[in-house]
Amino acid sequence: MATIKAAILGFGTVGQGIYHIVNEKRAELKAKLGVELEIAKILVRNPNNERVEGTAHLLTDSYEDVLAVEGLQVVFEAIVNEEPAYTYLKKAIEQRCHVVTANKVMFAKHGMELQALAKTKGVHVGYEATVAGGVPVIKTMKNILLVNDVHRIQGILNGTTNYMLTKMRQENWTYDEALAEAQRLGYAEADPFNDVSGQDAFKKLMVLSDLAFGEQPNWDDVEVIGIDTLTATDLEQAKANGLRYRHVAEVEQNEQGDIVGKVAPLLVGPEHPLYPIDDVFNAVAMETNYIGTLTVTGPGAGMYPTASVMVEDYAEIIGKRAGFTVSI
Amino acid sequence: MATIKAAILGFGTVGQGIYHIVNEKRAELKAKLGVELEIAKILVRNPNNERVEGTAHLLTDSYEDVLAVEGLQVVFEAIVNEEPAYTYLKKAIEQRCHVVTANKVMFAKHGMELQALAKTKGVHVGYEATVAGGVPVIKTMKNILLVNDVHRIQGILNGTTNYMLTKMRQENWTYDEALAEAQRLGYAEADPFNDVSGQDAFKKLMVLSDLAFGEQPNWDDVEVIGIDTLTATDLEQAKANGLRYRHVAEVEQNEQGDIVGKVAPLLVGPEHPLYPIDDVFNAVAMETNYIGTLTVTGPGAGMYPTASVMVEDYAEIIGKRAGFTVSI
Repeated sequence: MATIKAAILGFGTVGQGIYHIVNEKRAELKAKLGVELEIAKILVRNPNNERVEGTAHLLTDSYEDVLAVEGLQVVFEAIVNEEPAYTYLKKAIEQRCHVVTANKVMFAKHGMELQALAKTKGVHVGYEATVAGGVPVIKTMKNILLVNDVHRIQGILNGTTNYMLTKMRQENWTYDEALAEAQRLGYAEADPFNDVSGQDAFKKLMVLSDLAFGEQPNWDDVEVIGIDTLTATDLEQAKANGLRYRHVAEVEQNEQGDIVGKVAPLLVGPEHPLYPIDDVFNAVAMETNYIGTLTVTGPGAGMYPTASVMVEDYAEIIGKRAGFTVSI
Repeated sequence: MATIKAAILGFGTVGQGIYHIVNEKRAELKAKLGVELEIAKILVRNPNNERVEGTAHLLTDSYEDVLAVEGLQVVFEAIVNEEPAYTYLKKAIEQRCHVVTANKVMFAKHGMELQALAKTKGVHVGYEATVAGGVPVIKTMKNILLVNDVHRIQGILNGTTNYMLTKMRQENWTYDEALAEAQRLGYAEADPFNDVSGQDAFKKLMVLSDLAFGEQPNWDDVEVIGIDTLTATDLEQAKANGLRYRHVAEVEQNEQGDIVGKVAPLLVGPEHPLYPIDDVFNAVAMETNYIGTLTVTGPGAGMYPTASVMVEDYAEIIGKRAGFTVSI
């Protein structure tokens, strides 16, 4: 039986999750796909730090070592920031490797270009994990776009801020109290800027815009307002009126055909699809022409949710290759 | 350019929806799939009744006429009840046609068999429309099952009863008042038995059970309790306690490995994923091992939602054939 060799770039939470799932599901994946998946190399900063037992021989700090793996066919990328992730994935695609990424910062900027390059090389790019962690919003939208037009997307794309807004409403916490607790629980970074400012949600929104409309708004034209503008009093008043603040990232095609985006706190009532989404959950509501509004909801982060959609991307890519005997 | 010839069986709401969408999206589907789709025959009871202008020459009441279409490759089935739908689809598959069905009653009983037959014939069966109308629960679950195990499914699979329970709660209507309004709006049939008894939801649940677990519970072992057991007083008490009744179809694999199903009114609190689903919406919550709980929500019925997922099934089937140049 054929073996597919893969590398993992970055061995933090998500990278380790991929490694664990590939091992736990080895037999099932082999049975479903007809090929074995072997993690052949793991790129880390410090190859002397064996974070997962039994991986020491796989670790390297040299990307050249990764690309030199004989028969390398898949690269899982789970590092942060634009570089060197972009350069790494570009090289992998040029070498005709499929790539699967969780890197929204890189993909918001280079996603279309990497997909175009992959097309010329006959390989695939999986990017489900760039948006909303374990929630399969990319695949759901790709599928409905086969027939439907999506004209508007509204999403809760950052679990940290949704957690904070939930606690501020439910427990009457102040913004500072909610942030402190989010940091204590590991939801927010020591520097919470990307989450609370809306920049994290903005990057994910741009990935969705590429998919739904084939283009993004000019980044400078997108208003991005964080939740740090909200006070406990704002939330109390909303509650008294039966409303809730959600930190909503939205993008739509307006009547002139322009793509318009925004990230901002939004006051929503019980009839809104994002009204019930509490805690660290993510949700994306897609307004379509035939179906109406479809909403997908689930865990927006975490080792296993995010890693599992990346392994699903792999399975989907490999599945496309195999077993379709349909002739027309 | 190649043309794919298709037939529509049944020309009621859903069948007509397919016809309209195929025409409206003709150019886009052709551009995406590289083939033209031609509706070559429409099976109806009375071929003298031209329900949609310009279709008179396509109508027939003879299934032999349908199967005799030269080069027929796809059969869309949008009729109700087990027979003759089952016999029709079996014949179509034996003739190496792809089939796309919306018929839950037939598919709950014969879905596994038809899929097995299709496999031996090298064709595909699309059945997204059998469960939850426009909500892509089948594709979402197929996708997450590539890597995740689904151990429990809970769904609101009948829009009529969800509408009735919503109105009984919000407007303090009695069961009879809610039913009368559902009938006036066309949500419930003159004989509402299948909806209110839970039989409709039960059939859809069995289709989900096949997909998630590869098997169904014994039908006789599945408790199916309708919403006609609920009184306005029950709903008032629930409301007073901050709870809501949902008509929930659920199936799970228990610790002994047995598949256990149930359809019944369920009292849920605000933390439950089905708590916020009001009116005619459908929703399915899937509990998985890696991702956690994923919920998809949307319109559970209607001409365009249901028909559009059937055309998506077609696009997916044809897409599998074409354009995958990946070589490993």
